[in-house]
Amino acid sequence: MTAGKYSERRKRLFSLLQGESGIVIFTGNAESPAQYFENAYKWRQDSTWLYFFGIDEPLFAAILDLDSGEETVYADDYGLDDIIWTGPMPAVSSLAAEAGVGNSAPYAAFGEAVKAAVAAGRKVHFLPVSRYYNAILLGGLLGVEPSKLFRSGKKGCPLASEPLVRAVVKMRLVKDEDEIRLLDEAAELGWRMHTKARRGIHIGRVEQEIVGEMENEALSFGWGVSFPTILTQHGEIFHCHSHAAALEPGRLLLIDAGVESNSHYASDHTRTYPTGGRFTLKQREIYQLVYECNELAFNMIKPGVKYCDCHTAVSVHLLDGLGRLGFVKGDPEELAAMGVAGLFMPHGLGHNMGLDVHDMEDYGEDLVGYDDGQSRSALLGLGSLRMARALVPGNVITDEPGIYFIPALISRMKEEGFGKGAVNYSKLETYCDFGGIRLEDDVLVTEAGARRLGSRRLPIAPDDVEEAMINDETLWDF
Amino acid sequence: MTAGKYSERRKRLFSLLQGESGIVIFTGNAESPAQYFENAYKWRQDSTWLYFFGIDEPLFAAILDLDSGEETVYADDYGLDDIIWTGPMPAVSSLAAEAGVGNSAPYAAFGEAVKAAVAAGRKVHFLPVSRYYNAILLGGLLGVEPSKLFRSGKKGCPLASEPLVRAVVKMRLVKDEDEIRLLDEAAELGWRMHTKARRGIHIGRVEQEIVGEMENEALSFGWGVSFPTILTQHGEIFHCHSHAAALEPGRLLLIDAGVESNSHYASDHTRTYPTGGRFTLKQREIYQLVYECNELAFNMIKPGVKYCDCHTAVSVHLLDGLGRLGFVKGDPEELAAMGVAGLFMPHGLGHNMGLDVHDMEDYGEDLVGYDDGQSRSALLGLGSLRMARALVPGNVITDEPGIYFIPALISRMKEEGFGKGAVNYSKLETYCDFGGIRLEDDVLVTEAGARRLGSRRLPIAPDDVEEAMINDETLWDF
Repeated sequence: MTAGKYSERRKRLFSLLQGESGIVIFTGNAESPAQYFENAYKWRQDSTWLYFFGIDEPLFAAILDLDSGEETVYADDYGLDDIIWTGPMPAVSSLAAEAGVGNSAPYAAFGEAVKAAVAAGRKVHFLPVSRYYNAILLGGLLGVEPSKLFRSGKKGCPLASEPLVRAVVKMRLVKDEDEIRLLDEAAELGWRMHTKARRGIHIGRVEQEIVGEMENEALSFGWGVSFPTILTQHGEIFHCHSHAAALEPGRLLLIDAGVESNSHYASDHTRTYPTGGRFTLKQREIYQLVYECNELAFNMIKPGVKYCDCHTAVSVHLLDGLGRLGFVKGDPEELAAMGVAGLFMPHGLGHNMGLDVHDMEDYGEDLVGYDDGQSRSALLGLGSLRMARALVPGNVITDEPGIYFIPALISRMKEEGFGKGAVNYSKLETYCDFGGIRLEDDVLVTEAGARRLGSRRLPIAPDDVEEAMINDETLWDF
Repeated sequence: MTAGKYSERRKRLFSLLQGESGIVIFTGNAESPAQYFENAYKWRQDSTWLYFFGIDEPLFAAILDLDSGEETVYADDYGLDDIIWTGPMPAVSSLAAEAGVGNSAPYAAFGEAVKAAVAAGRKVHFLPVSRYYNAILLGGLLGVEPSKLFRSGKKGCPLASEPLVRAVVKMRLVKDEDEIRLLDEAAELGWRMHTKARRGIHIGRVEQEIVGEMENEALSFGWGVSFPTILTQHGEIFHCHSHAAALEPGRLLLIDAGVESNSHYASDHTRTYPTGGRFTLKQREIYQLVYECNELAFNMIKPGVKYCDCHTAVSVHLLDGLGRLGFVKGDPEELAAMGVAGLFMPHGLGHNMGLDVHDMEDYGEDLVGYDDGQSRSALLGLGSLRMARALVPGNVITDEPGIYFIPALISRMKEEGFGKGAVNYSKLETYCDFGGIRLEDDVLVTEAGARRLGSRRLPIAPDDVEEAMINDETLWDF
C-alpha cells in the first residue's frame, strides 16, 4: 500500500468527522506476553492502525487533530541495544513518511499530548480497546479504569467516541480494490490450508497432527492462522480447541479455520468431512440440508438485500428440510418466527471479514453489523447474527449455515418446554452423538451480486467431498 | 501429574515460607486478545500456576493462607452459553480436587478475599506479573498502578513478595523426575523440529517456508513453539523475526527455535547451517571455534561449578581462537577480563529452562540466576548472563556460545576506543557481512556431571553438519 493510500484514508476520516472537534487518537499494539513478559506471542499489529497507517511495528501511536488538521505519529527510534537484539529499524520519521505523515515525535510525547488535550478540555476521540496493554495506557492518560475501555456486550464501549466508531466502520465495511485483492490472496491460501487438512484425514490419526500440517501452510505462506483452528469430531461445540482425540470411524470432522496473510487480511472457511471418506446415510441427509442452506444464502446475496433476511430464509429452508426428516412439525415460516431454527443453528449466518476475522467486532456488533434503526432479534440464532445490514458492494461476509445436535441445549430446551408439539425431542435425542455440520465460504458483495473469494472453491457438494477424499486430484496442484 | 504431586509441591512451599504470615495469591492467566478481544492467541496458562495447580483453563486463581494452612481455588463453573461455545468443562470443584485442593469458590470471591485481607492489614504475598490482564486485576485489588506489578529490569518487581519469589525459585530451579521426563520429551520433539528445518534448507527458498514446516512439528506433536522462531541469514541480529528473505548461496542460516510440549515444558536449540550445504573456509574457522566453546562448557558442567565460570572459560577460549585468527591480540585471560569477548558474544552463555524457556525470568534475573552474594558482572556479554549460580543436580540450563559480527556494535566500540590495540578493527570490518553463529544445547546437571536432554543430539561438529545436509540418513527416521 502506498503512502498516498493511507493519506487518502485519513483524509476521508477527517471528512467523515466534519463537525467534530478535538483530537482523534490511535494506538498501535504492544507485544503481548505469552509466558514471561519478554517472551511474547507472535507480533500482531492493531487492525485499524494497519488500515490508517500500515506501520507494522510495536509501540506506535498517532494523533489526528480535527481542528488544525495536523497528523503526528509517535514512536521511539531504536537504540544500540534494540539494534543488537532485533536488528535495525528505519527511523520513525521515515516510517511515518511511508504512511504519508509528515510529523513524528517520541512515544512519550503521545501521552503528554493526550494529557494536554484532556487538561485543555478538548474532546479526545478514541476507539474501544482490544488489548489489555492499550487499556492500561489509555486508562492512565484519560483517568479511566482500564476495564471500562473495552467493549461491553454488543453495544461497544460507552466511553469511546461514537462518531469515530461510525466513521471507521463506514470505511472498513466497504473494501476497496487493494483490500479485495488481499482478501482474494488470503482466501487462496485458505483453500490451500484446507486442502492440506483434508488430505490428512485418516482414521487413527490424532486431530492435532492435522492441525499442525494445515497451520504449516498458514505459517509458510502467511502470517499464521487468523483465529485458533477448530478441528474436531465434536462439531456441536462451536469453539472446540482440544485436538487430543484420534479420528474414529463413522464420525464427522468439522474444520473451521482461516489464514491471515502476510498483509494481515483474513480468510475463514469451514468444511465438514466424514472421517472415513464416505458419509453415512444419516450424515448425508443433514449434510445435504446444510449445503442447500449455504447455496441458498449465496444466491440471495446482492446489493440492497438485508443479510438478516438471508439468515431468515436459511432458517425457513432448514426447518422445511428438518420437517421432512421428522425433527420438527409445522409450517417452516411459523417455526422460524418462533425461533425453532435456533435449536439446530444457535449462531448467525455470518459476519463481516477483513483485517479482523470478525471485522471490527470490538467496536460493538450493533454499530458494525446493524443499520440505523435496525434492531437485533431476540430469537435464538438470529439474535446472534453479527451482520444484518442491507448489503452494499464491497462488503465481505461469511456464509456459514450449520446444523448441530447439542445435548446440553436440547435437554435445556426440552425442560423449558420450548417448541412443544413442534419439536420431535425423542428423535432429536437419538442424534446426541451426531456432532455438527457447518459449511462456510467467504463472499464479496459485487455490483452484480456476489462472488466467493479466491479462485477455487473447496469441494462442498457431498459427492464432490467424497470424491476429493478418495481420489484427490488436487494432490498434484501445489 | 497426580493430585498428590501438586499437594506435595504446595506443602513444600508452605514449609519454605515458614515464619511468614498472611496469604499467598496465585493468578492463572486470562485469554490474551490477538486481533479483537474475543479472538485470542493460542491459550497458554501461567507457568507457576501450572507448577502448583496444573489446571490448564483460563480465569483461575488461588489463595494459600499461611496462617490457617487453608487452600482455595477460585473460578466460575460453566453456564449453558459456555457449554455451547467451548464445550463442557468439569466442575471447578473437581478440577480443584485434581490439584489436591479441597476448597473452591467463584472467581469473584478471589477478589473479595484479597480485598478483605488487605483491609485486615494482612500481608499479601504475590509474584511479579507477566501479563497485562493480571496487572489490571491485581492492580485493582491491591490499589496499585498496574504497570508497577511487572518486573523492572533484572531486579524483579519491588512490590512483589521476595520470600515468595525466593521459595518458588528454589523449587522450580531444581527439576524433579517428572519434570526431567517431560523436558526430555520436549527436547526429543525439538530434535525432530530442527531436523525438519535442516532438511528444508535449499538455496532460493524463502525463510518463512522453512519456519512453517518446522513449526508444523511443534504444533502436530506439542503445544507449539516455546518462543517466536529465529531463522535468519542475519544471525548477528539476536531476535530477528523477519523471515521474508530467500536463501542465498554462501550464507549462514541460524535457527534458534524451541518446542513447547503438550505438557508445557520447553526445548531450546540453536544450530547454524551453511545455506548451500558446505561451509566456506572463513565460515568453518569461526564455526569450529563456537563448536569448541559449546563442548568446553558442556564438559565443565557438574554440581558445584559456577555457571559464570563456564561463561568466562568460554570467553577465554573464544579469545584464544580469535587471537589465532587475527581478530584480537594479547593474553586471552587478560582480554576476557577487559570484556573483549563481549564484542563477539554480547550475550550470556545460557539460562535456566523449564516451564518457561528463560525459566522464571519475570521473577528477576538476579534472584533467579544468581546465588546470594554473587554479583552481576558489568562486562559486555558476561553482564547479560542469566544463570551464574553454582550448579546443583536437577538444574536445566542452555549451553549456547556464539560469535557474531554486528556492524552497529563494531562501529560503536571502535568509536569509543574499546579494546584499542587489542582488537583488530580493520579485520573485523571485513566480516561485516558474515552474520553470526550460535550453537545451543539443553543440558541437565546430574549427580555425576551433565547430560544433554533428549535421546539424540542434533549434528553439531562441522563435518557432521555437512554430512547431514548432503546425505541425510535421518530422513527415514520418522
